[in-house]
Amino acid sequence: MAWRLWTTQVDEVDLVENGVYEEHQSRAGANGTGPGSLMDPLEDPVPGLGTYEDFNTIDWVREKSKDRDRHREITKNSRRSTAALLHSISDAFSGWLLMLLVGLMAGALAGGIDIAAHWLTDMKEGICLDGFWFSHEHCCWKSSETTFKDRDRCPQWQTWGELITGTSEGAFSYILNYLIYIVWALFFAFLAVTLVRAFAPYACGSGIPEIKTILSGFIIRGYLGKWTLITKTVTLVLAVSSGLSLGKEGPLVHVACCCANILCHLFTKYRKNEAKRREVLSAAAAVGVSVAFGAPIGGVLFSLEEVSYYFPLKTLWRSFFAALVAAFTLRSINPFGNSRLVLFYVEFHAPWHLVELVPFIFLGIFGGLWGALFIKANIAWCRIRKTTRLGRYPIVEVLAVTAVTALVAYPNSYTRMSGAELISELFNDCSLLDSSQLCGYLQPANISETGIGNSLADRPAGPGLFTALWQLALALLFKMLITVVTFGMKVPSGLFIPSMAVGAIAGRLLGVGMEQLAYYNHDGLIFKGWCTPEADCITPGLYAMVGAAACLGGVTRMTVSLVVIMFELTGGLEYIVPLMAAAMTSKWVADAFGREGIYEAHIRLNGYPFLEPKEEFEHSSLAVDVMRPRRSDPPLAVLTQDSMTVGGVEALVESTRYSGFPVVVSQESPRLVGFVLRRDLLISIDNARKRQDGVVGASLVVFSEHPPAQAPDGPPPLRLRGIMDLSPFTVTDHTPMDITVDIFRKLGLRQCLVTHNGRLLGIITKKDILKHMAQIANRDPDSILFN
Amino acid sequence: MAWRLWTTQVDEVDLVENGVYEEHQSRAGANGTGPGSLMDPLEDPVPGLGTYEDFNTIDWVREKSKDRDRHREITKNSRRSTAALLHSISDAFSGWLLMLLVGLMAGALAGGIDIAAHWLTDMKEGICLDGFWFSHEHCCWKSSETTFKDRDRCPQWQTWGELITGTSEGAFSYILNYLIYIVWALFFAFLAVTLVRAFAPYACGSGIPEIKTILSGFIIRGYLGKWTLITKTVTLVLAVSSGLSLGKEGPLVHVACCCANILCHLFTKYRKNEAKRREVLSAAAAVGVSVAFGAPIGGVLFSLEEVSYYFPLKTLWRSFFAALVAAFTLRSINPFGNSRLVLFYVEFHAPWHLVELVPFIFLGIFGGLWGALFIKANIAWCRIRKTTRLGRYPIVEVLAVTAVTALVAYPNSYTRMSGAELISELFNDCSLLDSSQLCGYLQPANISETGIGNSLADRPAGPGLFTALWQLALALLFKMLITVVTFGMKVPSGLFIPSMAVGAIAGRLLGVGMEQLAYYNHDGLIFKGWCTPEADCITPGLYAMVGAAACLGGVTRMTVSLVVIMFELTGGLEYIVPLMAAAMTSKWVADAFGREGIYEAHIRLNGYPFLEPKEEFEHSSLAVDVMRPRRSDPPLAVLTQDSMTVGGVEALVESTRYSGFPVVVSQESPRLVGFVLRRDLLISIDNARKRQDGVVGASLVVFSEHPPAQAPDGPPPLRLRGIMDLSPFTVTDHTPMDITVDIFRKLGLRQCLVTHNGRLLGIITKKDILKHMAQIANRDPDSILFN
Repeated sequence: MAWRLWTTQVDEVDLVENGVYEEHQSRAGANGTGPGSLMDPLEDPVPGLGTYEDFNTIDWVREKSKDRDRHREITKNSRRSTAALLHSISDAFSGWLLMLLVGLMAGALAGGIDIAAHWLTDMKEGICLDGFWFSHEHCCWKSSETTFKDRDRCPQWQTWGELITGTSEGAFSYILNYLIYIVWALFFAFLAVTLVRAFAPYACGSGIPEIKTILSGFIIRGYLGKWTLITKTVTLVLAVSSGLSLGKEGPLVHVACCCANILCHLFTKYRKNEAKRREVLSAAAAVGVSVAFGAPIGGVLFSLEEVSYYFPLKTLWRSFFAALVAAFTLRSINPFGNSRLVLFYVEFHAPWHLVELVPFIFLGIFGGLWGALFIKANIAWCRIRKTTRLGRYPIVEVLAVTAVTALVAYPNSYTRMSGAELISELFNDCSLLDSSQLCGYLQPANISETGIGNSLADRPAGPGLFTALWQLALALLFKMLITVVTFGMKVPSGLFIPSMAVGAIAGRLLGVGMEQLAYYNHDGLIFKGWCTPEADCITPGLYAMVGAAACLGGVTRMTVSLVVIMFELTGGLEYIVPLMAAAMTSKWVADAFGREGIYEAHIRLNGYPFLEPKEEFEHSSLAVDVMRPRRSDPPLAVLTQDSMTVGGVEALVESTRYSGFPVVVSQESPRLVGFVLRRDLLISIDNARKRQDGVVGASLVVFSEHPPAQAPDGPPPLRLRGIMDLSPFTVTDHTPMDITVDIFRKLGLRQCLVTHNGRLLGIITKKDILKHMAQIANRDPDSILFN
Repeated sequence: MAWRLWTTQVDEVDLVENGVYEEHQSRAGANGTGPGSLMDPLEDPVPGLGTYEDFNTIDWVREKSKDRDRHREITKNSRRSTAALLHSISDAFSGWLLMLLVGLMAGALAGGIDIAAHWLTDMKEGICLDGFWFSHEHCCWKSSETTFKDRDRCPQWQTWGELITGTSEGAFSYILNYLIYIVWALFFAFLAVTLVRAFAPYACGSGIPEIKTILSGFIIRGYLGKWTLITKTVTLVLAVSSGLSLGKEGPLVHVACCCANILCHLFTKYRKNEAKRREVLSAAAAVGVSVAFGAPIGGVLFSLEEVSYYFPLKTLWRSFFAALVAAFTLRSINPFGNSRLVLFYVEFHAPWHLVELVPFIFLGIFGGLWGALFIKANIAWCRIRKTTRLGRYPIVEVLAVTAVTALVAYPNSYTRMSGAELISELFNDCSLLDSSQLCGYLQPANISETGIGNSLADRPAGPGLFTALWQLALALLFKMLITVVTFGMKVPSGLFIPSMAVGAIAGRLLGVGMEQLAYYNHDGLIFKGWCTPEADCITPGLYAMVGAAACLGGVTRMTVSLVVIMFELTGGLEYIVPLMAAAMTSKWVADAFGREGIYEAHIRLNGYPFLEPKEEFEHSSLAVDVMRPRRSDPPLAVLTQDSMTVGGVEALVESTRYSGFPVVVSQESPRLVGFVLRRDLLISIDNARKRQDGVVGASLVVFSEHPPAQAPDGPPPLRLRGIMDLSPFTVTDHTPMDITVDIFRKLGLRQCLVTHNGRLLGIITKKDILKHMAQIANRDPDSILFN
């Protein structure tokens, strides 16, 4: 396995806490492939090579090059024997097999989470007499003869109050239910936060900011491990069941990525290559959204638009395949017995009118404003949590928020139901048969008399609807406030459902308002011509949907993937234009207050080294302004190719904390020869001192192809050309930084050397760039914590 | 407008015909931005700078940098005055406005083409007595009282035979119709090919190979110009109407790109920047597919997967917007009066069964085989056309093919109808009322008696269906053969519809076969359990659809976009799995015979400099193996920074044909300083000789920051640092070529300098890389024609 030796490891990681050390991050170099390589990499495999330290950035170029070498090796061998040919074929299809497995596993897990969360959510309210393991819905299926309306009220299902007092009426029973609801909620929340703290601290939050960072090439060990997977799956169920204002959609992306990462260990190709593994993780992000919403195409576009860093076409195909497999696995598990594929199935009957674009755009503005406000408030709150004593008591915080949520949410039926149910109800179009409060319209006389007429025509609002509107307005206020403090707590928490809920409520309110306006003013200026009294001209459900898209867009700044997810829910191209109008308006409005979405904001809050691919570098600085050493600093620590002794090299390495050193021709003529990593250097010298006779402190260290002539009585030289990266990236000192940043982004570099007229001047690392960008934006450059 | 001077022009283009000259393509350099720039670019704008020569490759890095400079300038100014602020805002929104215009224009043109093609196609068969400008369908709408069945046969519409002989019966009338059909077909084809030759030779073919090349950074002047647009629009209508086996979908992409390119001239931002313009063109490709199929999401994915080279997220959003606008423009033009959005509207009623995946995969294999075979046959035919005398008589060729097509096609109703109509009919699910021959099933007794039962149940085939199958088999054979010689002729010709037609016929045949098998063996091993006699268990229309996807996939190697386009046609997620299975199988099978799709094959046939982003570079060569000069060649022609005279420079430039020269410190110490373009050098020296006193042949040419001390009586030096690119890209000689190719692809470079230990060794151009790749693949390296 020659390719394994192609990478070397980064040493001496400058960890988070200490921003004082100025460390030049160095590329994980490769051995030269040229005929001049003196060390045969096959001969002496040093353990530990080829992996990265925690909290470090990978070198995409080397990883991809490594994979190509591996592939080349396999192709070459495949001509030799049938076994090798089969190996080559199995290698080619292993990617697809892996995708199949990821789809199956993520689909199955999502199905399990769905079922468990439903069961526990219902547990807060009551119990099934046929068996405690049945959810409310499942319990009532079993009762044989129930009409549609009564399905919710079967005798087998009893609320806790009913079970204890024997009656479902009365204040006492209500209060008992209320209290038991709160107790369950607290219990679930406590369990969730304790499990997270005990087993996998990485399981908290939505995980999308970290996954974005990981996909851009960062290493966080254990973030996608099996403990995180198990803990996140269990605590996600608990957190959702506790009634907190959070969703399971974001965390499902994390769960899918964990599955992919674990399954990667089955295939050498992906286990040993960080770049290849990231391709699989990009596909897994698509799988996560696919199972969350039942929207495979939307999932792929989400991964492409929002999460991924490197998304080649091969990944596009594979993501799509995996997303489809996952969606169909979920459907065949069929957690709700109705073979639905999408999370919110909607079917609208009426087309929309061009005039309605005005309220839709208005919803977009609302979504954008709310998104921007939410991000600012949430980040401020997270900063408080980070800097004050609040952060030290996560369990208390979670319990307090849960208690408040449960206390306030229970009395209002729209906050008591889960976010997904709420959204489902708000998206729904009212038919005449609908018994829900939201459809509490007055029956128009002409229909009940004649039995004909458009059964979906706009009708005047009745008292039921007014109550519902009032409750919805309160729910809106409550959701807007509580979500700010909920997102970022130490439990798994997604943001999709709460954001969509806020938007759906606002949209439904506006929709009902428009509908009533149209009903009472159907001859008015605006509605004349398209809104006759018998027509179903306004669909409040569509407004809810547009509002949901607008708010989710404002928070996450998704556009196309958002619209496509919504399109997959409805399956009709007709509603794309309203959705697009709202999503775009929302993005523009929110961008006016700050270009970062919630995930980018959290990445910055945590100081991850993420080079945003969407934003352009606008400043006109040059490479020479960003590189180290600065003018006042001591000169760059370099090695010379054939004039330093082992002792000199060791002294240099010990006096600095850089993780790599450029090799130049000589101190007088600093022309770049290569780049060598600190760890490789130390390991090789140690190795040589142990195994190679005559290597002493005075031995020459030789990086050049041909060692210089030397005194015959001196010690033999130590040849280290083999550990040197012979093709380090360079830019000239006059290269504009926008081009340099482009190179870093597109090639996924970790560092780049700066030359002037062929002489080495300095070095630029990814961290230097991020610090420079922070400085330009008037932020603290030390907010970038990791390498 | 300082940014305008940031680019310079490439000179002395080594044109196609002469492969003898070894020319080093040079990057369109930029002036230095450093404090050391001696020339103020604002002072002396030299005309012609900032554009590229025809058949040359742009430098993406410089173009993007130029745009960032422009943007920076506008942002800086926007703080100064309200007018500048407004300018800044309008600049930011100009991209969206442009997209809106492209969508509107392309949608309108597509609508016009649709209407005109229908009219002319019907013209071949007959005429409307109410007015010759009505198409058959339009003519019969006007006749007030017609049932669905009679709509095709209204008295106002008369075939030519009917009009002349007065009766629609009889052999004479048939032969008359036949002859007039052929005459019209020949007339349309003749008109099309003559117009193409006379006005815009670039209007022929599908245009997608060229658009792919243009999007990758190549310049073909006039390919997207107004004459091409007009000619292509008109001749596309004629070509489609002539009954040739070609489609209008591919050319619509070309038409949309022409619209975009022309509209770009309205906005300075896009007119003057080749990289920005390519972003718009990528979006336009999406618009083309969007209007062709009524599938906006599929269009965007088509552009992403198949056509585009550089597709940032911003382009994703804008493409989607433009595609939507175009689709809705087309719908509001409503060329068929039924407000359909998609080209083939399909609605299936029965789900598919897992067992059916076997025939679906079989269709995938068929599609892959046919795709591979078609590409080989078509390329071989095109090569014959290119190399033999056949190529000299394009008009005769077109007329001959048209004559054969018309002669053979007329007697068979499935070949006589247009490709789109045929596909539409094949996709259709048979209901009981359907009068088409394809639905000529025997009526089962139980339904006609009781009136109940599943009206869509599988039925035994009747004589009508047998005739249809027979005709379809002949049509399949004919379409397979004639498409090979049709694609590539000198008329606009798309490949989507013919490919889909072949697949749809094969799929329908298989589907009917399966249906009959299931009907007669419903208790057999395979069908037992899911195929009861009364069930509608096999949908032949779905087989046709899967077959169409498979064949189109085999020819173009699209996967995701193909499936999404098909998904948008049906609107149901259920059929994605069969489509995906067929598309993937088809791609794998076809790839086994050659990895190139039809568009890549045509790119290679034409020798365009296209660096395929999908394929990995597998060979293990190093930069030093690819660079020029080779070991036996004379050394690289370089300039020195401060020791050459004007005369020396002029002599060097005249003795070579390179388009650019590296500048080094001195001949003895060839350390790289910068890169200067031939054209810039000549213009500057000319300019200096004219305007600057004392510049003679013996004057020093100085590229360094500080000119060397010189004799006081000598002529003043000529300072040319301003025209030098101070940040040329370099790689070391040991850089593996896979990394170098990656850099070229990702950054869009034109050339890269090769160094060893800081000394300049050679240069690698895009053409060198393509030649090297051709050599590895055992192809003629001189097949790469352009720079």
